[in-house]
Formats: sequence, structure tokens, C-alpha cells
Amino acid sequence: MSLGDGTAALIVIDVQKAIDHPSHGERNNLQAENNMAALLRAWRDTGRPIYHIRHDSVEPESHYRPGQPGNEFEPEVRPLSGEVVIAKQTNSAFIGTDLEARLRQAGQKVLIVTGVITNNCVEATVRMAGNLGFETYLVEDAAFTFGRKDWNGTWRTAEEVHAMSLANLDREFCTVVVTNEVLEAVGR
Amino acid sequence: MSLGDGTAALIVIDVQKAIDHPSHGERNNLQAENNMAALLRAWRDTGRPIYHIRHDSVEPESHYRPGQPGNEFEPEVRPLSGEVVIAKQTNSAFIGTDLEARLRQAGQKVLIVTGVITNNCVEATVRMAGNLGFETYLVEDAAFTFGRKDWNGTWRTAEEVHAMSLANLDREFCTVVVTNEVLEAVGR
Repeated sequence: MSLGDGTAALIVIDVQKAIDHPSHGERNNLQAENNMAALLRAWRDTGRPIYHIRHDSVEPESHYRPGQPGNEFEPEVRPLSGEVVIAKQTNSAFIGTDLEARLRQAGQKVLIVTGVITNNCVEATVRMAGNLGFETYLVEDAAFTFGRKDWNGTWRTAEEVHAMSLANLDREFCTVVVTNEVLEAVGR
Repeated sequence: MSLGDGTAALIVIDVQKAIDHPSHGERNNLQAENNMAALLRAWRDTGRPIYHIRHDSVEPESHYRPGQPGNEFEPEVRPLSGEVVIAKQTNSAFIGTDLEARLRQAGQKVLIVTGVITNNCVEATVRMAGNLGFETYLVEDAAFTFGRKDWNGTWRTAEEVHAMSLANLDREFCTVVVTNEVLEAVGR
């Protein structure tokens, strides 16, 4: 994998307390937050660029609404003072935000994407990142999702939903990698 | 469903001869092309706006490359003289094209999306359409996909891949409908 000569941007999507709400049900990748924390440490220690994406829902019932406890970042991924936080209101971190403009202006052409939910905001962002021409890596064990029914009513476990999303994305919109590959590339 | 007082735009994505190539394998929704043809007839007869999206691949090996027979539209959805054809080079019909600008300029806020492949270019376009604020309907029996392995190596039939994609999209990025609902709304 490429790290863009140090310019590869680490993007952490929507890892806020609302994600712990029991209504989400069964999840996969219980180690995902620790993996995100390890990537953040590596990025901070080597002075690489980090973008924290925060979902500021405008839906009245959402736990992600600003002012709700659920809007706060999870402790493992809390931005440090001075780090860039980009607020979004839709699924894709590229819509209604200046993320693309910031990346282009800084010459950051490689994106390392982590966060939640794999098949929702992560997938929406990765699909756009690839189509916008960024060299995009999705760190699959630094992301997670939840079980759900498919359109025909068949229950799919979180691991199945995750695996279908990754299959749709890999080699079409991004390259799927794991945390250890990224840490090795950074020299950790 | 809403048809935007006659301004709802019918969008047909990537229905070109390359989609018949046997390398794609088993597909679902064998009636999809006929359903698209029925929707096109209804849109033409009632003077509603139509956007034909054509994939002009830049990949050397792609059957969708301009100049290849696979680049030609399938007969059921061939544009009539004077109809709008928008060429794209990525998965999403909104990236690298003037589709959004045309829709906004014409005040067309409702989109009826059909075409191929459900979990690839159709899903990439629908995700962006919803996030860009368009009232978006995906006509699920006027779209289709192919069987494939998921990321864990489990084979998923075309119908399973289709059903997982629809579940990801419905009520998050669009409303999933069927052809007959749309035809009834048009009064056919």
C-alpha cells in the first residue's frame, strides 16, 4: 500500500457515543475502536494528517443530534486540541462539507478510512472517495457494522453485512486492508 | 410516492451491451429491461424528463470502452433522437458529469432510478442522489445484479446481493419501489 510520502490522511468517521445505543443490536469487530486508537497514535507520532468526521444529525429523534450525549466522540478517538473536525449532516463525508477542498489544497491524495457504520456512512464516503480519484484504503478491522434483515427479510449477521459491503467496495472504489498492514507501512 | 408534479426525472444507468458478457455470471430480475422500457414509454408519452447514463470506461480491458460493441445501449433502452445522454467514467453518475447541475437548473427534485448494476453504479448514484437532497426512488425490478463472493468467500446469489444492496439504500438514501407503483403514479 501507499502512504503518499507521509501525506496519507487518516479519516475517522462517526465514532460517537450514539453508536453504543442498544437499538443497533449485534455488532462485529469488537476491537475496531482499539485499532482506530492505534492508527491515531501512529498518525500523531509521525505528524501525518488526521480528519475527524462527526455526524451532526438534523433528525429530531437521532441520538447523533448536537447537544445529545450521543453526539460526543468515543474516548478512544477523541480529537486532540488543534486537530481537524469536520461536521456532516448526511452519510457521505464529502457532501455539504469542505473535506474534498481541504484534501486537494493540502495535496493529500491517499486516504486511510476507518469508522462506522461499514455499509452506511463509511461505504458512502469510500464510494465517493474512490470516484473522486483519491487512492483510498478501507481498514476493515477498524470499522464495524450491525446485523440486519436484507430486502427479502433474511437476517444477515453483522459479519455478513460487513463482508458484503467490503466485497462491493474492494477493487472498485478502494483497497480493503487491515490495521496491521497500515501500521507496518508507517513503520510501527 | 411523489412524481414532482411531472418534473420527476427517469434515470437509466449503464444499460449497455457489455452487461450481457458471460463473464458477469448469473443475474437476477430477467424482466428488468422490459420494465425499464415500460417506464421509458410512460415518460415519453407524458413528456417527462429522461436522463440516459452511459458508462464510457477508460479501462483498457473494459467492454464498456467507447468504440467497443459493449458500449452501445441495449435496444430496450436506446435513447431517442433529442434525449439527454450523459457519459460518465466512474461509478456514480454525479461525479465528473453535469447531471446535478442539469437537474438543479431544471428544478427536477425527484429522481426515479433504474439500471445496472444494483450494488455498483446504481447504488453509488442512489447514495449520492439521496445525500445531495434529491427525493430518490429506486425501482428495484428495473435493476439487476450478479452473483458474487462476499469478503469472507461465501457465495451470494444475484438475488442475495440485490437484496442486501436494497436494504442498505431504502429509507437511508432512497425509497425502494417497483415498476407497477411508478406506472400507476403516472396514471398508466
